[in-house]
Amino acid sequence: MTVTPRAQSPRELQVLSRIEAFRQRRPRLLEDVITLAHGAGGKSSAALTDAVFLEAFGNPTLAALGDSAGLTLPSGERVAFSTDSYVVQPIQFPGGSIGHLAVHGTVNDLAVSGAVPKWLSAGFVIEEGLSIEVLREIVADMTEAAALAGVEIVTGDTKVVPRGAADRLFINTAGIGIVPTDRVLGPERVAPTDRILVSGTMGDHGMAVMLARGELNIEADISSDTAALGGIVSELLAAAPGTRWMRDATRGGVGTVLNELAKSANVGVIIEEARLPVRPIVNGACDLLGIDPLYVANEGKFVAVVPVEESEAALAALRAHPLGEDAAIIAEVVAEPPGIVALRTPFGGSRIVDMLVGDPLPRIC
Amino acid sequence: MTVTPRAQSPRELQVLSRIEAFRQRRPRLLEDVITLAHGAGGKSSAALTDAVFLEAFGNPTLAALGDSAGLTLPSGERVAFSTDSYVVQPIQFPGGSIGHLAVHGTVNDLAVSGAVPKWLSAGFVIEEGLSIEVLREIVADMTEAAALAGVEIVTGDTKVVPRGAADRLFINTAGIGIVPTDRVLGPERVAPTDRILVSGTMGDHGMAVMLARGELNIEADISSDTAALGGIVSELLAAAPGTRWMRDATRGGVGTVLNELAKSANVGVIIEEARLPVRPIVNGACDLLGIDPLYVANEGKFVAVVPVEESEAALAALRAHPLGEDAAIIAEVVAEPPGIVALRTPFGGSRIVDMLVGDPLPRIC
Repeated sequence: MTVTPRAQSPRELQVLSRIEAFRQRRPRLLEDVITLAHGAGGKSSAALTDAVFLEAFGNPTLAALGDSAGLTLPSGERVAFSTDSYVVQPIQFPGGSIGHLAVHGTVNDLAVSGAVPKWLSAGFVIEEGLSIEVLREIVADMTEAAALAGVEIVTGDTKVVPRGAADRLFINTAGIGIVPTDRVLGPERVAPTDRILVSGTMGDHGMAVMLARGELNIEADISSDTAALGGIVSELLAAAPGTRWMRDATRGGVGTVLNELAKSANVGVIIEEARLPVRPIVNGACDLLGIDPLYVANEGKFVAVVPVEESEAALAALRAHPLGEDAAIIAEVVAEPPGIVALRTPFGGSRIVDMLVGDPLPRIC
Repeated sequence: MTVTPRAQSPRELQVLSRIEAFRQRRPRLLEDVITLAHGAGGKSSAALTDAVFLEAFGNPTLAALGDSAGLTLPSGERVAFSTDSYVVQPIQFPGGSIGHLAVHGTVNDLAVSGAVPKWLSAGFVIEEGLSIEVLREIVADMTEAAALAGVEIVTGDTKVVPRGAADRLFINTAGIGIVPTDRVLGPERVAPTDRILVSGTMGDHGMAVMLARGELNIEADISSDTAALGGIVSELLAAAPGTRWMRDATRGGVGTVLNELAKSANVGVIIEEARLPVRPIVNGACDLLGIDPLYVANEGKFVAVVPVEESEAALAALRAHPLGEDAAIIAEVVAEPPGIVALRTPFGGSRIVDMLVGDPLPRIC
């Protein structure tokens, strides 16, 4: 049955002709099939997003998005809209579960865009055979996390697939937040001399999950930092109203966030290595695995760019919050070379901090 | 690391104590593990939703929802919010792909709630090894479907899992629609003598997917009916402004929708079997499989309840639309017995049409 679509507007015809061209083109990718690196948040992820998703979906709202889209309703009210799927393995780990991540991850995307998170949807893909007791624990984790983050889970969906067609449980959440009328954040506001802060220690979540898999011969007491950032973000914005831009440092870690910042703001970033906050035990585990904590996922940390004159007030506000005790000013924005992140060592040396290549830590979130 | 949560409001404390009680209770379910039936949209799905999701998430907004939640923004503007995950196998089939379903399914949830669909999020869980060419085709299908439905895909996420941890591709979409100020639909508005319409033939999608799997020894030319219903729903509402309630008849089919209606509106429903629109070829395939087309999924059909005096105008409006040529008045609302759906045969017999038990058609959407 072929149904004639309804009369098409000029706008629709434009999209359809763009998509026809997309169908005809060869993809601008080196690979023919999806690899784990395409999901790691680094170079391959960016290439896939550009060559498939942005090229196809391309629309003015999408083009402007970081992690969340800014929407303007007919009344003029502004909302932020964001989504993430969670495929972490194992689904329960020290410090949290896939349920905590599914709430915190999406709430944090909204919070760092400057919005006040309000409502979540939750979509579950469950493998046949999952224990209902485990499912109940994870759903309880989600409800608690939502209550503490001040959001409601208002709509949902459940799909079950046969054994072997999924790995226990995947969760997708989408979230809506309200954007205060006076709030403007964006990479275009970032300028040389701005300071870059991170709200606490790096790499705790990624290392906690890696160790929880038990595949590594390391015994270390590391817990995920999964947490909702709405409260600490509000404290920062009150103390540093000139804040330029924020991003939660999840997949790909702080190193990836700073690379995205350098590219989107067309600036350089100089990191002071001595100032990077990393727990010694996390540092030790990263050393053993040969992974730089700059690239390890966090689930309760964010990066903020503030004007230099507000940087000390911003740091004090972060450190005064229970989630920000280890906050630090870690880097400075410079004009040259644009798009590049460099790291200065305590001994005066320096090296380039590039986008992540490959996927050292699959299924971390 | 345990972080003391911020000072808790009375509302938050109430949720936390409810969740503590939820954690302590034994689930009110017969099974200990998830089965395919929990995802089929029938009796087991309803039991799982009640005993796990509604019991945990329970909040005023969630309690009122059918497939989409109605949200009121600070400005007073109303929006609808809905989500669905798509796990159909195979991901491409006669008449469409998982990409069409992912757009149409969520857009249709919003449209039948009375909202005008506007924005979608899209979350992809991809199995390592998926062909990028296939991914591009599906993303192109999504873009086309969105353009024809008048919505934009504005935010997204991609996760990749290792071979064997998922089956090729799962997609989640969440959607936001604008609710016109004068629009009120709900099961509480349904009353005896109301007529129930279906917008076209039943079972095309489910049978198309079953046959596409090639596991059945049946050759039949059946295509999915996947389509966006926003346009035909608008035509219906213009012709029958007294419309009480609508629902798209996806997983579980028209039989499940009518059972949900009877229970939520606390009315009886009498179906006239002779009026049920089913293509002969679909009927034949259902016969061979021993499945009643009343329970087979559609992806471009909806059920509407209208006052008897508007029923002929409603039918004419549906039939005038390309997606509604086979629309029919199939049932009547009665007072007794409440919660029960019965079917009257052409020969004067009758039988109860119960909720679906088990899952005859897994991974149909």
